[in-house]
Amino acid sequence: MSDTPNPPRRYSYLGPAGTFTEAALRQVPEAAGQEWRPVANLGEALNDVVTGVSDAAMIAIENSIDGGVAVAQDALATIPNLRIIGEYLVPVRFVLVARPGTRLDEVEVVAAHPVAYGQCRAWLDDRLPEHRHLPATSNVQAAADLFGEDGGGSAVDAAIAPPGIEEYYDVEVLAEGLAENPDAVTRFVLVSRNPPVGTPSGADKTSLIVELPDDRAGALLDLLEQFSTRGVNLTLLASRPIGDRMGRYRFVIDAEGHVLDERVADALLGVKRYSPKVVFLGSYPRADRVAATTHDVHDDNRFRDARDWLREVISGAEA
Amino acid sequence: MSDTPNPPRRYSYLGPAGTFTEAALRQVPEAAGQEWRPVANLGEALNDVVTGVSDAAMIAIENSIDGGVAVAQDALATIPNLRIIGEYLVPVRFVLVARPGTRLDEVEVVAAHPVAYGQCRAWLDDRLPEHRHLPATSNVQAAADLFGEDGGGSAVDAAIAPPGIEEYYDVEVLAEGLAENPDAVTRFVLVSRNPPVGTPSGADKTSLIVELPDDRAGALLDLLEQFSTRGVNLTLLASRPIGDRMGRYRFVIDAEGHVLDERVADALLGVKRYSPKVVFLGSYPRADRVAATTHDVHDDNRFRDARDWLREVISGAEA
Amino acid sequence: MSDTPNPPRRYSYLGPAGTFTEAALRQVPEAAGQEWRPVANLGEALNDVVTGVSDAAMIAIENSIDGGVAVAQDALATIPNLRIIGEYLVPVRFVLVARPGTRLDEVEVVAAHPVAYGQCRAWLDDRLPEHRHLPATSNVQAAADLFGEDGGGSAVDAAIAPPGIEEYYDVEVLAEGLAENPDAVTRFVLVSRNPPVGTPSGADKTSLIVELPDDRAGALLDLLEQFSTRGVNLTLLASRPIGDRMGRYRFVIDAEGHVLDERVADALLGVKRYSPKVVFLGSYPRADRVAATTHDVHDDNRFRDARDWLREVISGAEA
Amino acid sequence: MSDTPNPPRRYSYLGPAGTFTEAALRQVPEAAGQEWRPVANLGEALNDVVTGVSDAAMIAIENSIDGGVAVAQDALATIPNLRIIGEYLVPVRFVLVARPGTRLDEVEVVAAHPVAYGQCRAWLDDRLPEHRHLPATSNVQAAADLFGEDGGGSAVDAAIAPPGIEEYYDVEVLAEGLAENPDAVTRFVLVSRNPPVGTPSGADKTSLIVELPDDRAGALLDLLEQFSTRGVNLTLLASRPIGDRMGRYRFVIDAEGHVLDERVADALLGVKRYSPKVVFLGSYPRADRVAATTHDVHDDNRFRDARDWLREVISGAEA
Repeated sequence: MSDTPNPPRRYSYLGPAGTFTEAALRQVPEAAGQEWRPVANLGEALNDVVTGVSDAAMIAIENSIDGGVAVAQDALATIPNLRIIGEYLVPVRFVLVARPGTRLDEVEVVAAHPVAYGQCRAWLDDRLPEHRHLPATSNVQAAADLFGEDGGGSAVDAAIAPPGIEEYYDVEVLAEGLAENPDAVTRFVLVSRNPPVGTPSGADKTSLIVELPDDRAGALLDLLEQFSTRGVNLTLLASRPIGDRMGRYRFVIDAEGHVLDERVADALLGVKRYSPKVVFLGSYPRADRVAATTHDVHDDNRFRDARDWLREVISGAEA
Repeated sequence: MSDTPNPPRRYSYLGPAGTFTEAALRQVPEAAGQEWRPVANLGEALNDVVTGVSDAAMIAIENSIDGGVAVAQDALATIPNLRIIGEYLVPVRFVLVARPGTRLDEVEVVAAHPVAYGQCRAWLDDRLPEHRHLPATSNVQAAADLFGEDGGGSAVDAAIAPPGIEEYYDVEVLAEGLAENPDAVTRFVLVSRNPPVGTPSGADKTSLIVELPDDRAGALLDLLEQFSTRGVNLTLLASRPIGDRMGRYRFVIDAEGHVLDERVADALLGVKRYSPKVVFLGSYPRADRVAATTHDVHDDNRFRDARDWLREVISGAEA
Repeated sequence: MSDTPNPPRRYSYLGPAGTFTEAALRQVPEAAGQEWRPVANLGEALNDVVTGVSDAAMIAIENSIDGGVAVAQDALATIPNLRIIGEYLVPVRFVLVARPGTRLDEVEVVAAHPVAYGQCRAWLDDRLPEHRHLPATSNVQAAADLFGEDGGGSAVDAAIAPPGIEEYYDVEVLAEGLAENPDAVTRFVLVSRNPPVGTPSGADKTSLIVELPDDRAGALLDLLEQFSTRGVNLTLLASRPIGDRMGRYRFVIDAEGHVLDERVADALLGVKRYSPKVVFLGSYPRADRVAATTHDVHDDNRFRDARDWLREVISGAEA
Repeated sequence: MSDTPNPPRRYSYLGPAGTFTEAALRQVPEAAGQEWRPVANLGEALNDVVTGVSDAAMIAIENSIDGGVAVAQDALATIPNLRIIGEYLVPVRFVLVARPGTRLDEVEVVAAHPVAYGQCRAWLDDRLPEHRHLPATSNVQAAADLFGEDGGGSAVDAAIAPPGIEEYYDVEVLAEGLAENPDAVTRFVLVSRNPPVGTPSGADKTSLIVELPDDRAGALLDLLEQFSTRGVNLTLLASRPIGDRMGRYRFVIDAEGHVLDERVADALLGVKRYSPKVVFLGSYPRADRVAATTHDVHDDNRFRDARDWLREVISGAEA
């Protein structure tokens, strides 16, 4: 992002303070010292960007356990002019918190965001087999639910929340490490409004949303060949229903490389010709800084050499 | 299903009575007059089948708007010995209901299952811009929430529920046709415990869950070719993270045809050789009764003729 | 060819007058009234073009019965700077001729070019089962052989020659329609020295010779995909050994369309990046005037639209 | 071949003694001490096998410089019930011979089989720029031509012949090493009449001739996928016109492996279903004894395991 002359100045994120989304935002150097705007849900965050209220929004886009965050993928597919400018990974860890003085064996009702609940289900079934689940709208809200609407009593006994929640709420940590998979991470992306693409960092990703020309199975094969014939690997391929009728899908695709890499640009041209609808969601540095692996057949040099050759054969120059 | 000598006798389904799942179960001729067992969630329904409490369970597997029901797909991928024996489509329609006497302009808090809420969001934002959403665990539970835990007062003013809900609760319908897409349907499957596959009906589907041998993009292309070289079309291809680490996916696949069709069996053999893990989820009649479209190159006869030919050339018989 | 400002003025062809090659040359409007130079073999014809002795040479490149004329294909693959500028089809028909007064039942020794002999073999075996074959260097030379070196006696009794041979030699036609396949044609190409490519005629062919990057079978599949992903059909794919060692092949390829068609140019760029050696042999009007069949996905417009789209997404313009 | 209970007892080959074909036959252990029958051309050799005159015939099938021997490929494609049972490689080397006492600078007319002439052309053009070529029907016949029909005078001054020719004719070797490429070899195959296939040797080849279902370029891609999806590499892919009309080809295919290898059998089944005409030409030990390279995904074990798995899932056995 270092080449962006005017970095975003107001950032929307799923609040309140203490969420995983805030943890992702803390990884953005340019966001330090700027205005951070907590919002209640994804729709608000993206709306802030669309309307210009904020310059960028941090949103969760994929969770290594739960897969694509369907609402976010669908929003990026349908809201025009959004562009991903950065990618960030936040480890998924959960603690069980309660009002001070609560003992684990007293816990009957556990507030938790459904996704968090799913990831802590095994732990809860093992330690609190009799518990009941109350869905919360966010992991931090689950903790807030401990204190009811009026700050007083509540039907909730404990909450599943991110580590560090005790900095924001007067809670006690009853247990740590609830998540089933200690390696789980959530992938976040920073979204802005149609900025020019940045310069390649050498370890980039390009995100697309592509509709297939028709609902033949072969259509997906043809689409994937547009990438494979140019030596472009995919790190994500997720199907999402278009929603107009059963059996029609769009595909969320993350490809290795940057749109300014010749092989990626060429693949995108192929996809664009082929597909009735392509949404380019941006080329941006990968969170894991892993450089694309590609055969030298797909080097930029090869593309340039081939163009030079073609120009010569058309003109009839001596070989 | 007519060839199953002993049809299931106890059916688990997401209750209570009045849910879309119950509507799906009503489409099963063999279930008429048998015992129907309402359960609280998908996990219980499948557990009933695994433990033998029930003979079959009806579960939602795909929604034309929201895509794969991720939890169901993951459960089928990981719980052994489950098998799909039937497929049913239920139109997705919603009504807004309230306690008798409530006027639409009095509604502030709307109880709704999050998926139902998503599908009615546009309607609500338009007619009740100030409303707040309270998540419910099912569409019928949303209606039940109107009457609180003790059957008395409740913070909920209205609920999004399936048509017909007034047969089960003392509610008044404030509005109909809330869902954004009038053609939306939910796809349900009836799941049993490892029955032998039934005979082909002529319009069947075969469901699989397949892990790729490694995380190359080309691996998916190779997988899809196992189907395309045998002329087997896919009606569903959805990726789900395996969950062990970011970037590893399994694929939920519905293929046209029956495992007793030669071309489907051959494709499955190819997939099985190729993939480190394949879960066969069953071959069953399609809800839409659409026969598979295939080229005669992939007829059963062609398979038999080719085998006869190969036997002869190996033996050295005169051509 | 009408757009070539200075058409070739001297044409080399396999003589003498009366050959099929001359019949091909007669189909070239621009050649009328120019100098025609009969030569003894293909090597001389191409050498005339390379050295500038002639402006163009007519050569046989494919025969619908005998396949690629291997020597011609190898010459085009290895002699630099040759370019095909036109394609012509000549029906393959043969007559049996003899010195005046010869009766069919007197014929013992038949002079014939080996290719012609192969095509008339069935006729000869049927009518002249006792005949012997004397190979001749051309179909016309076979007729000339009737008169020996000194114009006098000869061991040859009859010759297989093209129809019309009696215009050039004092022979009598003993039989017509000797060729087994009445629909057989020979394909000729007119070759020049690296002219600029002409403008597309709407029904063009593009000829290439391509070496594969290595000797894997998959390499050919990858090569063919470079054409199929751009919707470019092939009318010819012939393998020829490179000759350095067993198992290494180059491929002679005729593709539908013109190098100035976007899809063909794009396929050539892909092939060029991929292959260690590509020889562009020219884009030229097809002899059969059949326009390329292609899906509108591969129209020039689609290519331009895709490039415009890519330029915009890179610049960050609003969609 | 060691498993053949009754090895062929009479072998036809392109004679006379001294030819490359005889050199190939000398490589067949089973042929030692049996009757060898020299014939005048390929047609006679194959006819001997078809009619039962001989038990096997040795024929040239591919030359690393000249490519497929078209006539042999076409004969195998069209004569029914022929089967390749062995493969042999003979280095292509040529000497220039003359009647005793002839000096190199006296040579004007050189007799040579056209293929041999092509391979020695560069040498001849360099040393004997004024020479003329007289086509001969075989390399040995070229030497015989030195002595004319009546054993006396002849218009031929020198002949291109295989090394060792002086054992059969009273000739003097004027020069050695005439062939342009010192590594050139000719590939020969031993052909019998529909024997049962032998047991795999561990380094085998399987030969086929396949017609494409129609003349789309994509048809060849589809054909090649039948091999690639089973991990079967091809060592030869040559196109030959079917001969009925321009643009229709059959393909001569050599695949790595034996028809009793599961992956090869499965590929053949796929090809057979797909193609309107497949000729199986045999599975036989490779001359170069190179074992097929294949991924363990394509092991026989994988095929058996997959079949066991499919049988179980169809029966509904517990996983």
